[in-house]
Amino acid sequence: MTEPVILVDPLPRTLDLIMEPDVRARLERLGRLVISEDKPMDAATIDALLPETVLIFGQTDMPRERLDRAPKLKAIINVESNFLPNVDYEACQQRGIAVITPGSAFASPVAEAALGLALDLARGITAADRAFRAGKEEYGLAGNRDTFRFAGAPVGLIGFGDLGRTLRDLIRPFRNPVKVYDPWLPAEIIERSDCMAASLDEVLATSKVIFVFASVTSENQHFIGAAEFARMQKGTAFLLMSRAAVVDFPAMLEAIESGHITAAVDVFPEEPVAPDDPVRQIEGMILSAHRTGGTVDALYAIGRMAVADAELILRGLPPQLCRRADPAIASRLRSKPVSVT
Amino acid sequence: MTEPVILVDPLPRTLDLIMEPDVRARLERLGRLVISEDKPMDAATIDALLPETVLIFGQTDMPRERLDRAPKLKAIINVESNFLPNVDYEACQQRGIAVITPGSAFASPVAEAALGLALDLARGITAADRAFRAGKEEYGLAGNRDTFRFAGAPVGLIGFGDLGRTLRDLIRPFRNPVKVYDPWLPAEIIERSDCMAASLDEVLATSKVIFVFASVTSENQHFIGAAEFARMQKGTAFLLMSRAAVVDFPAMLEAIESGHITAAVDVFPEEPVAPDDPVRQIEGMILSAHRTGGTVDALYAIGRMAVADAELILRGLPPQLCRRADPAIASRLRSKPVSVT
Amino acid sequence: MTEPVILVDPLPRTLDLIMEPDVRARLERLGRLVISEDKPMDAATIDALLPETVLIFGQTDMPRERLDRAPKLKAIINVESNFLPNVDYEACQQRGIAVITPGSAFASPVAEAALGLALDLARGITAADRAFRAGKEEYGLAGNRDTFRFAGAPVGLIGFGDLGRTLRDLIRPFRNPVKVYDPWLPAEIIERSDCMAASLDEVLATSKVIFVFASVTSENQHFIGAAEFARMQKGTAFLLMSRAAVVDFPAMLEAIESGHITAAVDVFPEEPVAPDDPVRQIEGMILSAHRTGGTVDALYAIGRMAVADAELILRGLPPQLCRRADPAIASRLRSKPVSVT
Amino acid sequence: MTEPVILVDPLPRTLDLIMEPDVRARLERLGRLVISEDKPMDAATIDALLPETVLIFGQTDMPRERLDRAPKLKAIINVESNFLPNVDYEACQQRGIAVITPGSAFASPVAEAALGLALDLARGITAADRAFRAGKEEYGLAGNRDTFRFAGAPVGLIGFGDLGRTLRDLIRPFRNPVKVYDPWLPAEIIERSDCMAASLDEVLATSKVIFVFASVTSENQHFIGAAEFARMQKGTAFLLMSRAAVVDFPAMLEAIESGHITAAVDVFPEEPVAPDDPVRQIEGMILSAHRTGGTVDALYAIGRMAVADAELILRGLPPQLCRRADPAIASRLRSKPVSVT
Repeated sequence: MTEPVILVDPLPRTLDLIMEPDVRARLERLGRLVISEDKPMDAATIDALLPETVLIFGQTDMPRERLDRAPKLKAIINVESNFLPNVDYEACQQRGIAVITPGSAFASPVAEAALGLALDLARGITAADRAFRAGKEEYGLAGNRDTFRFAGAPVGLIGFGDLGRTLRDLIRPFRNPVKVYDPWLPAEIIERSDCMAASLDEVLATSKVIFVFASVTSENQHFIGAAEFARMQKGTAFLLMSRAAVVDFPAMLEAIESGHITAAVDVFPEEPVAPDDPVRQIEGMILSAHRTGGTVDALYAIGRMAVADAELILRGLPPQLCRRADPAIASRLRSKPVSVT
Repeated sequence: MTEPVILVDPLPRTLDLIMEPDVRARLERLGRLVISEDKPMDAATIDALLPETVLIFGQTDMPRERLDRAPKLKAIINVESNFLPNVDYEACQQRGIAVITPGSAFASPVAEAALGLALDLARGITAADRAFRAGKEEYGLAGNRDTFRFAGAPVGLIGFGDLGRTLRDLIRPFRNPVKVYDPWLPAEIIERSDCMAASLDEVLATSKVIFVFASVTSENQHFIGAAEFARMQKGTAFLLMSRAAVVDFPAMLEAIESGHITAAVDVFPEEPVAPDDPVRQIEGMILSAHRTGGTVDALYAIGRMAVADAELILRGLPPQLCRRADPAIASRLRSKPVSVT
Repeated sequence: MTEPVILVDPLPRTLDLIMEPDVRARLERLGRLVISEDKPMDAATIDALLPETVLIFGQTDMPRERLDRAPKLKAIINVESNFLPNVDYEACQQRGIAVITPGSAFASPVAEAALGLALDLARGITAADRAFRAGKEEYGLAGNRDTFRFAGAPVGLIGFGDLGRTLRDLIRPFRNPVKVYDPWLPAEIIERSDCMAASLDEVLATSKVIFVFASVTSENQHFIGAAEFARMQKGTAFLLMSRAAVVDFPAMLEAIESGHITAAVDVFPEEPVAPDDPVRQIEGMILSAHRTGGTVDALYAIGRMAVADAELILRGLPPQLCRRADPAIASRLRSKPVSVT
Repeated sequence: MTEPVILVDPLPRTLDLIMEPDVRARLERLGRLVISEDKPMDAATIDALLPETVLIFGQTDMPRERLDRAPKLKAIINVESNFLPNVDYEACQQRGIAVITPGSAFASPVAEAALGLALDLARGITAADRAFRAGKEEYGLAGNRDTFRFAGAPVGLIGFGDLGRTLRDLIRPFRNPVKVYDPWLPAEIIERSDCMAASLDEVLATSKVIFVFASVTSENQHFIGAAEFARMQKGTAFLLMSRAAVVDFPAMLEAIESGHITAAVDVFPEEPVAPDDPVRQIEGMILSAHRTGGTVDALYAIGRMAVADAELILRGLPPQLCRRADPAIASRLRSKPVSVT
């Protein structure tokens, strides 16, 4: 009997980046690993191995023709974390092939950083440090003229997937009232987390701190634009954590520069940002170079979650840690693949 | 029958700073207010009123001779928040006069800022913003080379009064193991907050993030010096939140400049800091101008707590919100009075 | 264009039992309801309506032949909460038909009752009441000779689905160390809930309170038998909450009668229990007539969750509140349908 | 120099009941123990030792004359937990002698039992067990006709000292709205625990579950009488946990027997209850023989807290674990000393 094959095609990740030795050892117990880390796995190798392949770790193109030739395939585990249109999701569903991603591994580091950024905007930490270095610090009460307490401030979440829920749990000790706008979710699930389901307009108009955790889809690009920024209260702290494309970026910068809002931004329309981009000098903004999620521990969590679910799937059990690609949703998503990890 | 008198002598605070109108109205229902806000209350006024005085709101000198002439006095409520040696604490205790302060009102804003600063040091928020503005940002994983996750990192608390306990509750969602050094507390009370009681040395050597919340006493000035900084692990985040005098400041700066630790500092040996003080240009440090506690809401909380306890005391009940001055402790404290609110 | 049809075939439930008027109104907005509540829907009606049916609410037999004739069918929502072998789960998966159940609605009332029963066994509440009525009560410390504190006691959970996780959250304030045996789950997911993954043997041997929340499958009937009861510590409190068939019932009764363990039992091999069954007189046991889950609010939650997910599915979105039938799992389950709601 | 003396006069407790060996060893390091456990310490011994006594562990009578002869006395630690009028509290305060009790040690076991009893009343656990034993059980939904969910039910607390606050924390996962009536506390402190301060009338009229944790004072005996029971909603669960004297006991029994309320009662006007007292046969009531507090662990906690605070006091620091006797409060309390531990 032939040994089961596991295709490992993880670019832009590498196995070492996402697996500590004990986790890799667990993966190796599941089958024979065939690995391509320096370039995407070549078609000839894939085609030769598909008949014995039980798992794909990575972002290999898997149209219907390839699925047809992989009768033993049980799961495709996307370790980059964005579902791209290079897999025939519907055909996978018909064949009972799980297409999953451990993308929620990034929720913990991003939410932690988001809270740090929110506390920073509320209490003026980075701005006050810059003022101190410029010899313009103010002491005590005077130094708090433009600050507010994060504790108890009305919070709005736009998007309530893994990220939103993780942030929600981090801020529980601060006792904020939390409103959530997420058109893909029923109110019931939002209320279970002690949040109120609300319209976008209500979230914008009533929140002192707004976190954007929404995915980009074919339908929501730039859905936060000039009108939406105008709806916010003066002094709102706005945190753009998920995808630059959900906001009208120039409108956001205009709202910051005018002093209407403050902001913390982790994602930019073009990365790296041009050396002379004026965004680099805007006051009222904290600049973060797409670095809130890419921590060493998050990448190791990617590997650990992927392997744990692979173990379950090969035992005939459903995965527990990764998120499934829902064909209906996957076809709407418009994330760019990451070029820098 | 004479109306009871309440002396209001709140400098460096003013009544408006610490009381919203509804709270002031509650205070006015307790007796006739005699107020001195532009200067400390003059001795003649005090002496004339002491026989009918039931409450003192403020920092009036109260030696034994004055206490002797205030037979109806029930409480002295220090609204500045540091117990100074201008009150005969022992004589007050003998007469059943409560000497109390609502100083714990500052615990919430300081702890919130302390968490913001700790997340900032761990994840490099302010430093990354500065790098971005200088055109030297790094994206993704590369941008996290010198960062660590606050979640799960070993935390050490030096001092476990109101501040330490409030911070401890704020960080619960991050699931840090927490060690506490506080020589005034039994292990039992530290363990109730799910922390481990530890020696100073153990806290220094095993924590990734160290918060200093200790009061200054006659015994502990500069107790964190060069030897203590050397005990810390490389890369420790050190937060000085309470009093500058508990550390050997030059030794701390040396530990930061050498790259051994990073730090966030809210208190300085001399405030304001001199314009040309080289501390203003140190990398690896977040500078905060004694501004983490002095928020508008904290000052209002001072007034609300003071009045609520005054109401209880005048009903013959023990105070519930303010801290009592323990004569033994009060005589050891060496805080400077605040000159800036 | 024909109006979409929703088949409502909810026996042994009825619509009124599971839907408050506002929820029913939401359901009616989704299509034309065709309802059979007094008997299972007759085959002729079903066959006539399948071509226009978009949703099935209930337990209608759905073999492949019927699925073939229901091209618009989007979901089968089982409102009884046990997946039975009367649906071709694999065919549904191939066609992208969601087969789901809001069975987790019972987790909240069952977990609440389970905690009540556990506190009762630990502290001897029901037993002490019976002794008091018999004139044999003991006061104070003497009355606690055979009791233990639930707070801090080692807890073991057998099965960690909705029920186990809900119970786990309810007991957080008691700070118990919690071990979990669930062979279908990776350690990672157990640890996220601050529990330790453990073998069955370890759970049995080290827990002071053991909750059984496991489903019955073709493989685990009677897996807790005489040997397993013998592994428990003397005085263990054993709570049988999920299905009688997972334990060897006579072996359990023997362990209770001998005084080796105490128990609370909500499920019995035959229900109703025979009038003369000696189980009715056993000391050391709390008897509960399969009544921990069937509360009014749980049935309404069934309806609310089902309708909320139906709304999502008809918008092309994935369900969020109900659990999906995994074909692999569904085929292993061996629950009896409930005859009494 | 003479060794300091510690008088140990703990009746009705004994040292072995309240101290494990390691705790006793800590006590012995503080001074020479002079112990009287079989009877109250005789006056001659006391009088001979007072000049060298630094601590009293127990309930020794301490009028002013004795205090006058104990110049080194630092603390009186009441290990029975009720402040009785046999100590001159005012004289102690004048001399800076701490009079304290570790009575909050009972809060944890009592609150745990109170939650068990409340879940029992809400879900009908003891009553259903009795019905099952009588062959009258009802299954499923039918068995829940007279029950309600504790989760989310409006809760009222009468008294918000250690007991009330401990219970409040235990029920957090159930998300009840909680109203508190406590005339000795400001609203501010009640709101910090996420409760609403309310009048007695409002608590009675709007709560589904009412816990009585109030102390008895000279002013509040029998303050919950016929009129108060009439104000409760039909079906209210009433838990009498603290002192029988706060209720009009016959009025309570009448409210239970009429089916207006259900109740759980841990304290009775006369204990032991007479063998033929009809209270033993009342339906709708759970009987508990003053046994919710007297657990082995609570007694050991008494000793541990007492010794930890003794250590602090002898170091010149304020106690942290025990409650101080406030002279104003102590003179109002009317607890009977416990005769049974």
